[in-house]
Amino acid sequence: MIKKLITIKRTGFICLSTLIIFMALILLLPSTVYAGEADLKIPNLTSHQNTLLVIGLVVCVLGMIFSYYQYIKVKNIRAHSSMLDVSKIIFETCKTYLVQQGKFIVLLFIFIGSIMIFYFGYLEKTPFTGILIILGWTILGILGSYCVAWYGIRMNTLANSRMAFTSLEHKPLKLLDIPLNTGMSIGVLLICVELFMMLIILLFVPRELAGSSFIGFAIGESLGASALRIAGGIFTKIADIGSDLMKIIFKIKEDDPRNPGVIADCTGDNAGDSVGPTADGFETYGVTGVAIVSFIVLAVGLNFNESDKLLLQSNFLTWIFVMRILMVLTSIFSFFLNKAVSNIYYGKAENLDFEKPLTNLVWITSILSIFVTFFASYWMIGPNSTVGTYSSNIWLVLSIIISCGTLGGALIPEFTKVFTSNHSTYVQECVSASKEGGASLNILSGLITGNFSAFWEGMVFVLLMFIAYIASTFGLDDIMIYPSVFAFGLVAFGLLGMGPITIAVDSYGPVTDNAQSIYELSLIETIPNITKVIKRDFGFEPDFEKAKYYLEENDSAGNTFKATAKPVLIGTAVVGATTMIFSLILVIQEVLGIKPEDTLNLLNPYTLLGFLCGGAIIFWFSGASTQAVATGAYRAVEYIKENIQLDENADTKASTEKSKAVVKICTQYAQNGMFNIFIALFSFALAIAFLSAPANGNTHAVSFFISYLIAISVIGLFQAVFMANAGGCWDNAKKVVEVELKEKGSPLHDATIVGDTVGDPFKDTASVALNPIIKFTTLFGMLAMEIAITEAFRDIAVYVGVIFLIIALIFIWRSFYKMKIGASKLS
Amino acid sequence: MIKKLITIKRTGFICLSTLIIFMALILLLPSTVYAGEADLKIPNLTSHQNTLLVIGLVVCVLGMIFSYYQYIKVKNIRAHSSMLDVSKIIFETCKTYLVQQGKFIVLLFIFIGSIMIFYFGYLEKTPFTGILIILGWTILGILGSYCVAWYGIRMNTLANSRMAFTSLEHKPLKLLDIPLNTGMSIGVLLICVELFMMLIILLFVPRELAGSSFIGFAIGESLGASALRIAGGIFTKIADIGSDLMKIIFKIKEDDPRNPGVIADCTGDNAGDSVGPTADGFETYGVTGVAIVSFIVLAVGLNFNESDKLLLQSNFLTWIFVMRILMVLTSIFSFFLNKAVSNIYYGKAENLDFEKPLTNLVWITSILSIFVTFFASYWMIGPNSTVGTYSSNIWLVLSIIISCGTLGGALIPEFTKVFTSNHSTYVQECVSASKEGGASLNILSGLITGNFSAFWEGMVFVLLMFIAYIASTFGLDDIMIYPSVFAFGLVAFGLLGMGPITIAVDSYGPVTDNAQSIYELSLIETIPNITKVIKRDFGFEPDFEKAKYYLEENDSAGNTFKATAKPVLIGTAVVGATTMIFSLILVIQEVLGIKPEDTLNLLNPYTLLGFLCGGAIIFWFSGASTQAVATGAYRAVEYIKENIQLDENADTKASTEKSKAVVKICTQYAQNGMFNIFIALFSFALAIAFLSAPANGNTHAVSFFISYLIAISVIGLFQAVFMANAGGCWDNAKKVVEVELKEKGSPLHDATIVGDTVGDPFKDTASVALNPIIKFTTLFGMLAMEIAITEAFRDIAVYVGVIFLIIALIFIWRSFYKMKIGASKLS
Repeated sequence: MIKKLITIKRTGFICLSTLIIFMALILLLPSTVYAGEADLKIPNLTSHQNTLLVIGLVVCVLGMIFSYYQYIKVKNIRAHSSMLDVSKIIFETCKTYLVQQGKFIVLLFIFIGSIMIFYFGYLEKTPFTGILIILGWTILGILGSYCVAWYGIRMNTLANSRMAFTSLEHKPLKLLDIPLNTGMSIGVLLICVELFMMLIILLFVPRELAGSSFIGFAIGESLGASALRIAGGIFTKIADIGSDLMKIIFKIKEDDPRNPGVIADCTGDNAGDSVGPTADGFETYGVTGVAIVSFIVLAVGLNFNESDKLLLQSNFLTWIFVMRILMVLTSIFSFFLNKAVSNIYYGKAENLDFEKPLTNLVWITSILSIFVTFFASYWMIGPNSTVGTYSSNIWLVLSIIISCGTLGGALIPEFTKVFTSNHSTYVQECVSASKEGGASLNILSGLITGNFSAFWEGMVFVLLMFIAYIASTFGLDDIMIYPSVFAFGLVAFGLLGMGPITIAVDSYGPVTDNAQSIYELSLIETIPNITKVIKRDFGFEPDFEKAKYYLEENDSAGNTFKATAKPVLIGTAVVGATTMIFSLILVIQEVLGIKPEDTLNLLNPYTLLGFLCGGAIIFWFSGASTQAVATGAYRAVEYIKENIQLDENADTKASTEKSKAVVKICTQYAQNGMFNIFIALFSFALAIAFLSAPANGNTHAVSFFISYLIAISVIGLFQAVFMANAGGCWDNAKKVVEVELKEKGSPLHDATIVGDTVGDPFKDTASVALNPIIKFTTLFGMLAMEIAITEAFRDIAVYVGVIFLIIALIFIWRSFYKMKIGASKLS
Repeated sequence: MIKKLITIKRTGFICLSTLIIFMALILLLPSTVYAGEADLKIPNLTSHQNTLLVIGLVVCVLGMIFSYYQYIKVKNIRAHSSMLDVSKIIFETCKTYLVQQGKFIVLLFIFIGSIMIFYFGYLEKTPFTGILIILGWTILGILGSYCVAWYGIRMNTLANSRMAFTSLEHKPLKLLDIPLNTGMSIGVLLICVELFMMLIILLFVPRELAGSSFIGFAIGESLGASALRIAGGIFTKIADIGSDLMKIIFKIKEDDPRNPGVIADCTGDNAGDSVGPTADGFETYGVTGVAIVSFIVLAVGLNFNESDKLLLQSNFLTWIFVMRILMVLTSIFSFFLNKAVSNIYYGKAENLDFEKPLTNLVWITSILSIFVTFFASYWMIGPNSTVGTYSSNIWLVLSIIISCGTLGGALIPEFTKVFTSNHSTYVQECVSASKEGGASLNILSGLITGNFSAFWEGMVFVLLMFIAYIASTFGLDDIMIYPSVFAFGLVAFGLLGMGPITIAVDSYGPVTDNAQSIYELSLIETIPNITKVIKRDFGFEPDFEKAKYYLEENDSAGNTFKATAKPVLIGTAVVGATTMIFSLILVIQEVLGIKPEDTLNLLNPYTLLGFLCGGAIIFWFSGASTQAVATGAYRAVEYIKENIQLDENADTKASTEKSKAVVKICTQYAQNGMFNIFIALFSFALAIAFLSAPANGNTHAVSFFISYLIAISVIGLFQAVFMANAGGCWDNAKKVVEVELKEKGSPLHDATIVGDTVGDPFKDTASVALNPIIKFTTLFGMLAMEIAITEAFRDIAVYVGVIFLIIALIFIWRSFYKMKIGASKLS
């Protein structure tokens, strides 16, 4: 037991304890000194509410124990050492990568932190300890993103080899369980850590600082997530393309150990597809929560008397948090329920459509969540609840709105499957097109799929938001201003209503993907007497052919579900955008003394200019992130081509040295790409915020930044969905050719590989990074905009804005000209 | 002479005379009967203004004579019959295609016409003759688009063979002149016909009907242009991809006569790259003009007394039209000036960078136009002009604003060249990427180029619009409301400020492209004793190798300039969007009695929903138009693969029968693709307009449609620029491999062909169609929205909207499921 603890300590445990100690320190700090006035004043809670939320803390701890239990369960699965060794190498490489990323994030934090200090310290005159607390929460946000990402990688690199080995056992249900348990462990831990920290703020941070702490926490989270998403996305796809292209060039099979790109690819699967979504998910839950908290505090109960208002607000806050707490329980319950169902239906099955039980899980959780939403809302804010000062159907209206989101959380994946599942017409079309038209029509077909999916999923969002808006017109305006803004925020909240499950099915993919690679890399089939050894040591007869088939099939399911989670996450960015921007609008209204509608309208030229800038930046970002991948992949291909050894006598084992060289190339381009992109994004947002300053009393300018934010979320949504699903379609078209048509190595296969490699940076670099980037820009922009409209700064802000614009344009220029293939190699 | 006239009569002459007769009939019709009240009341002109505009009519006629002169000049160039025969086949095929398109447009007109009758007849109670006049102008608009397209094709199919033959002559300057003269002839004719018709409306149509006639005319133009753009774009790219892919599959060279796709490809170059831009240009000039006319009538001089207001308006109208008239003269003058300069510099050159004289032409015209703008404005609305009731610097402000646009018209092409010229870093990068990364990195590199170009060109638009806006704050608000809206309209006007030249350089491409194909198809090198025959009949020694080199080089320049015109045209859609939407906003304000800002603001949930719908439709359109191309190309490839005869004994001449079969496939998919797309677009716009009806007094809903219109123009801009430049980059990357690296047939060449074929529907189908579609939706939507807010219709509008939405969704569904490869073949 003690030995076990030590093993854990080496990894995630260090992070977790750092987190806890840091949090404790922050909590001890403030209580006495601070006495400022907050923009976002969190009301005091009643003792009843306090009790409920403390129970929430307990639930979080229980959730963490559940995660730990799953961790132990996965860890205890036995596997052959040839496979364990490979996964160990992968984990070590991942660690190196994560440590480097960590350093970079520290650098970014110094930049962001100084702007926060300027704002809170110089402009807002927040006392020193106050600033410390806010910055502390920002660091906690970053650490949170970072730690869950670390935990995710640890889990995955335990599960991958165990799954690869279990595949030999001829029990497909086990192959479903391993990645799903892993995913659940990550998903539940993520939500619980997130919720735990937010509850701590709500329960224990002094009221004057709680609002700013929430904001600081959210900024930290999204900073961490953006950095991890962008860099991870670039890293993984350089490696992926680099090793994929060898298949066409040298006609070797996937994951051939002689290909030095394969280890980098496996590392990338974790750095990109595991670290990314985990950090992203962590951030999404946090930011959406903070947006809703802000709305409640700023807009609810304004026409009530002060004490009623505060009671109403605290009641709403408690309700929202209780819903989140229940989400943890519902998800865990659904997980077990689905496990039972799967055991009954597929317990003895020889073959298993791995997508089915995953789909069931999503729907079970969705339906259960909707029930729980109505029940809990009736109990907490229904007509018989303690606070009954407002219209009695509010609980119903709010439950309907949230359920729109929750339903969306199950519907959007279904729509995504229409475009990306290997049974889908679009994927079949992509395969057909490639038959006569080769790579050309394959590419076009994938792009078409992306376009159509952007339309249909866009329309689903429109429908959900429209219903939510209509529902919000039934009585919500009695108790709040701008109820439609709240409604959109709640839809985003609902979209995340089955958090752990969404993350779990998203984390399924990297495990299955890695498992397939590890199987090949372990060269298990070539080990002398392996069948006997396994029979002796593990007690079953291995079936190598079936194993490969299972792994391939499961990988396809993983691809599909990795694809389904993307639009949900990006959806929260756009659906929640209005809510996030809302507090900014109210601040502008208060500081400048204008009616928002007089400025933020479509006849204001700044609005149109803001839209254009938003569109421009989304397209640039898609290009710049892809450029880093393309150049990196070029260098990787160049290196691999020169260093691959395919002659008979060459060692068939993976060469560690060469693998390391490929990993180095991936890391360099990921770091450099991210550096240019981040500085550019960052300076561009600051530039627009400062250029929106109401210089010389021209309050029209403020619309510039607001419409910029709206544009990045709307256009970002379409771009992200387009890229994600085009990529998903290409990926599974290749899988269909491999698994169903069994045409590996044929010209048709080559054509689909082209699509797959183009889709790689589409779906796993550019698309997925848009969500945290939009959130980060919005949150950080709020701060920037508040600086811009401060009276002392207002008139010089425009000049500062021009400087930032120039910096942004330089880095945008660099993001191509310094990253292109023709540019000198990065050393 | 008479014989010549008869020859002409057979083609464009029929169209032109139909046009004139029809126009005369319409003008004879009204004068007595009509007595309604117009939304858009065009003021009476003073006799001085009348005289100026009548001079304008004379200028238009002179311009047409110039065009005719160029036509004769090109026609008189002699060429070998082997080449003339090929171009004759191409022209005949084009005619068949155009006739079919004509029939389809009649069908569309019946649909649009009935809605117009419903609006003007039933809702507005316009008398019968009034409706006739308005519909008559709509028909004239359609006919205008159609006729100039026809003329363009006639010119091109004369020029293509003559150019192919002249290439043998070793005089590169002649090879510049032929396509440029052709282009100028088309460009000047187009602008003159356009201007002539608008002047007729302004001068002779009764005031009560003039406004509606303008609108009707604009709707007709954009209907015609949209249909021709979409169908032409699909047609051309099916043929192009179909024949291109044969190069990879059978390792045959481009334009191999044994490839039955080549004739279809040549036809497509005309149907797509000539018909499309010509009709599009015609429409763009018309619609932008109408938008500005509407603004002047609705927003200028409102706080003056009635007679001063009318005088001011008529003065502004005259000024705008005089500027257009001068544009014709400036362009023709610049054309000759540039010709003289080119003769001096390149008269005796052995090699010629064809891009240079084209660039010079654009810049010369741009600078001259700016001078003319300032001069004419000073003369007409300056401090010493007849109407001097307003601030004396207005002429300066307006000239600066227009010049922003005119400068943009030269700057945007320069920016486009950064991304698509064969000397550009981006194109070089695309070639480099393909070296190690094959088709995969080639595709990624092109997409990256598109993304970066969308950013930079978007920023150029932002800059131009920002300057224009700032200029508009200097005194314009004394004489008009919403001066920034006017400023944006004038920027669009300025972008088109060198109309004939923009069209001329755009029309350069299809001629050079065709010439290259005709050279190969004529098999001239294989004709016995050809050198002697040419020497005897034409008096020079042919140089076959050099000829092919010239044609190739010139084609590359054609590609580049075809690419440069696209962002300019699409730019007018977005820059002018606000102005076009403006009249709608004023109508809404008047009918509903609301302040526009109270509804059209960013806090209104309908605004966000409108943005989302706009984004969705742009992405869908990109996909749907590409889908028609992909499936058509698949069928074409399938057919060609089965029917191509490559064995030694096969006839090397192009088989007419097989070529016709390919043309038939192209036509079918173009028609069917367009049908689905048009009905969907159309019904979707109607649906959103009707759903925006202020049912039950909910005036917030109207923002839905307005923000939809803004979204399609903003998102459409980025999507169009992205697609156009990605396509341009791939196209020239292939050219670089062919011309500079001379690696035809290598794997590198194959990789670049993949990019080129993907880029085909990007740049020549989806991208270019967005401009007329945005304009058509805006114009037609204005009508739909006016119906929706009519009191009698208001409350049922929503239900009608739902029906149209369902129709739209069905056709959007069909645009994939009925157009996919797996669907049954179109008979």
